[in-house]
Amino acid sequence: MPQRRTVFFVSDGTGITAQMLGHSLLTQFEGMEFDQVTLPFVDSVDKAHDCLERIERESLRDNGRPIVFSTLVNGDVREVVRGANALFVDLFGAFIGPLEEGLGVKSNHTIGRSHSAMDKQEYKQRIEAINFSMAHDDGASHRDLGEADVILVGVSRSGKTPTSLYLALQFGVKAANYPLIPEDFSRDELPEALRGFKKKLYGLTIAAERLHEIRRERRPNSQYADPANCRLEVAQAESLMRREGIHWINSTAKSIEEIATTILRELRLERHIY
Amino acid sequence: MPQRRTVFFVSDGTGITAQMLGHSLLTQFEGMEFDQVTLPFVDSVDKAHDCLERIERESLRDNGRPIVFSTLVNGDVREVVRGANALFVDLFGAFIGPLEEGLGVKSNHTIGRSHSAMDKQEYKQRIEAINFSMAHDDGASHRDLGEADVILVGVSRSGKTPTSLYLALQFGVKAANYPLIPEDFSRDELPEALRGFKKKLYGLTIAAERLHEIRRERRPNSQYADPANCRLEVAQAESLMRREGIHWINSTAKSIEEIATTILRELRLERHIY
Repeated sequence: MPQRRTVFFVSDGTGITAQMLGHSLLTQFEGMEFDQVTLPFVDSVDKAHDCLERIERESLRDNGRPIVFSTLVNGDVREVVRGANALFVDLFGAFIGPLEEGLGVKSNHTIGRSHSAMDKQEYKQRIEAINFSMAHDDGASHRDLGEADVILVGVSRSGKTPTSLYLALQFGVKAANYPLIPEDFSRDELPEALRGFKKKLYGLTIAAERLHEIRRERRPNSQYADPANCRLEVAQAESLMRREGIHWINSTAKSIEEIATTILRELRLERHIY
Repeated sequence: MPQRRTVFFVSDGTGITAQMLGHSLLTQFEGMEFDQVTLPFVDSVDKAHDCLERIERESLRDNGRPIVFSTLVNGDVREVVRGANALFVDLFGAFIGPLEEGLGVKSNHTIGRSHSAMDKQEYKQRIEAINFSMAHDDGASHRDLGEADVILVGVSRSGKTPTSLYLALQFGVKAANYPLIPEDFSRDELPEALRGFKKKLYGLTIAAERLHEIRRERRPNSQYADPANCRLEVAQAESLMRREGIHWINSTAKSIEEIATTILRELRLERHIY
């Protein structure tokens, strides 16, 4: 039986950063199993004591000594949680000392401000990007396409919508997306709406076999999902993009984050993070 | 003049975790300014050398000694970048030793697998959540509403759409959203489509003054954006939710991440992270 441990992600904010980094560290330990619990908004000494009790209770159970990944900022709160019978992994506090020394400046030791601290201007930019991407999903609107930071193109189900939404939500980038459909291939031209925006275009492609699987789930036994049709559409889309000089990425084995990161880098778009 | 430094976020993956945690650490140093550069996909010794050169060039410029936030997993890659004339903040490597000791197991030292390593089942769940949330945005469809993990309700522009999309993209949660409109208030009832799903409902409310600002930008001089109308809609929505026993959160001063985290916690929804 594999070794099991309970893991806590503890934060004075949302716990998203703690969970991401903690998760990434845990993937280095193959063959173990982890029960994961996120404890967000631990922003007072009282809440730290509740948190401590919760971890202590867990430490008495079968999984043995828990692991705590903490991004707690406030020293008093942190020291309470550190008192638990657990392996305390201090993702935040560990670096404040070296940064103070390297910068020659004392830190504020305030509550964590990632994923909070509403800078109104940044918030506005993000919401505008989300609204824009929603309004320009799947070629829904041609209006203001010139305002896009990027216009994703590709066959239906190549990953355009999730990528556009991620670009908007995580990076504040205005990402439209526009489907390439059989009519475009028979005309052998880009859709008219896109012709003025060549520099903003970025392509997604996908392995035909994978496209077939995805489409089959949505419309079984359709021409749309037929393997030969998927192969043809992908080949024609790639040929069209090649001829038009549109860079593309193959989304088949990539996460949404990897696709979005690649696009930002290749188009040299500024990368805010929220 | 404030002190300036150039900051690099270096990763063998997307750099998103490095950027989030690094950004959070930097907010502790008020009054300083940081020029931020993300260097993703540094997954070979060759790329590490390119990265090293880039940091070294920067160290010769006016901003002084750069700061490098690294989530590099591979030891050989990491040691190359660590050689740069910079403050090297090892967000990943710092914890592998203590974790190996605490777990009594050696780590794999493989390339980072957050935001990559496509587990097909997890990927499918995420994409399904995104498709669901898109199809059920703003009350667009009543079909399959019973499949929702959560149905957000609130007046127009209270933050339902960004929250739903975030829940789907980041946490793999199927989040529908449904507007509360003046017709619902005059009937003094929940919209019919929602009545069977009380346990899945969660409300968003917003300060009337803020709602007025947001609506005014979209439709200046409209009844929709009028301050008195905004106050009335908010009061009526809150009254309706109170009577129906729907919990709600005030989105006015909260980030999308904070709203989403609160909803997951209150509805006890499982929290995957991508």
